[in-house]
Amino acid sequence: MQLSSSLLENAVNEFAKLPGIGKKTALRLVLHLLKQDVNEVQHFSEIISRMRSEIKFCQRCCNVCDGDICSICANSMRNQEMICVVENIRDVIAIESTQQYNGTYHVLGGVISPLDGIGPDQLNIESLIHRITKEETKELIFALNPNIQGDTTIYYIQKKMPPQNCKITTIARGIAFGGELEYADEMTLARSLTNRLPVESYISHR
Amino acid sequence: MQLSSSLLENAVNEFAKLPGIGKKTALRLVLHLLKQDVNEVQHFSEIISRMRSEIKFCQRCCNVCDGDICSICANSMRNQEMICVVENIRDVIAIESTQQYNGTYHVLGGVISPLDGIGPDQLNIESLIHRITKEETKELIFALNPNIQGDTTIYYIQKKMPPQNCKITTIARGIAFGGELEYADEMTLARSLTNRLPVESYISHR
Repeated sequence: MQLSSSLLENAVNEFAKLPGIGKKTALRLVLHLLKQDVNEVQHFSEIISRMRSEIKFCQRCCNVCDGDICSICANSMRNQEMICVVENIRDVIAIESTQQYNGTYHVLGGVISPLDGIGPDQLNIESLIHRITKEETKELIFALNPNIQGDTTIYYIQKKMPPQNCKITTIARGIAFGGELEYADEMTLARSLTNRLPVESYISHR
Repeated sequence: MQLSSSLLENAVNEFAKLPGIGKKTALRLVLHLLKQDVNEVQHFSEIISRMRSEIKFCQRCCNVCDGDICSICANSMRNQEMICVVENIRDVIAIESTQQYNGTYHVLGGVISPLDGIGPDQLNIESLIHRITKEETKELIFALNPNIQGDTTIYYIQKKMPPQNCKITTIARGIAFGGELEYADEMTLARSLTNRLPVESYISHR
């Protein structure tokens, strides 16, 4: 694709660096911006730049926030003795949108994955252990993706746990709503059989 | 979707204004930028802002360019007496990528569409007529999309043409390569029958 302007070409190349955006989509986005008012595009560019340079991370749970402490950690209505350990900010948003969880979070910033060169030191594990000890946390819920890396991370953190009375749980693995038994993989089906639930508790939660 | 930071939320909203990008994709893009280096995101934002504020349009053909005249108009190797009339910049890129056209372009910036409130005055038609007269253009090729708006625009420009010896053509309508006759609409099939070609010229162009 040959463009008649280097300004246009640079902009297309920048957009094409974003995940899931190829050259053609990038060109469509840039040509859309080209049609907008100069001030509007200036505003767009400023918002992006400010977002990156001014955003802060909660000193307690490492979630993104505008101040020192995020709104979830600052909310006294929430159970501050319960920590849900998640991989990234997107998982916080996903769990929050269920409106079923009333505790706090701890964003690890990834999971242990030696193949990708990510060890425990690159993650917010140290601060989690420190926090559990200091705050005398009552329950730790792991909400990590069900794969080798997630399980390794759970195992590592569990080994590092301070000797205190803290319940450690993980979100349930099983057949998803709308899923079909015959298409479920063997591991999921096996786990959902092992961790079967009494029907009363199942019905009451629907 | 509730976000814990207004900076993040504003950035997501800005990205979601782009065509074909919803809230979820916007969040994915913003979180990607959040992971990048501050300087890199600064660079991204500057490139976008510069693109919009510094880009120029060729004084002759209205294509985007960095200077006063675009590289196609400035190229003396190209046939400067032939003008291909297109709707927008994307069409220039599409035709250029075929490497089959050696003339110049004229970007209208849209087509006449009363329903969308676009009349001839909003388009670069005046400058086209002026250019044809001044440059004594030998051939005018319409490469507009085959719909009512495109045909209206062709009709309007043709009526406005100065009385001079200029050949007026339009790109061929017909069955696309890889298309199947039985799925072609009646109008396309009818046109391709009316404008049938001698087999010799067809074979020599494959």
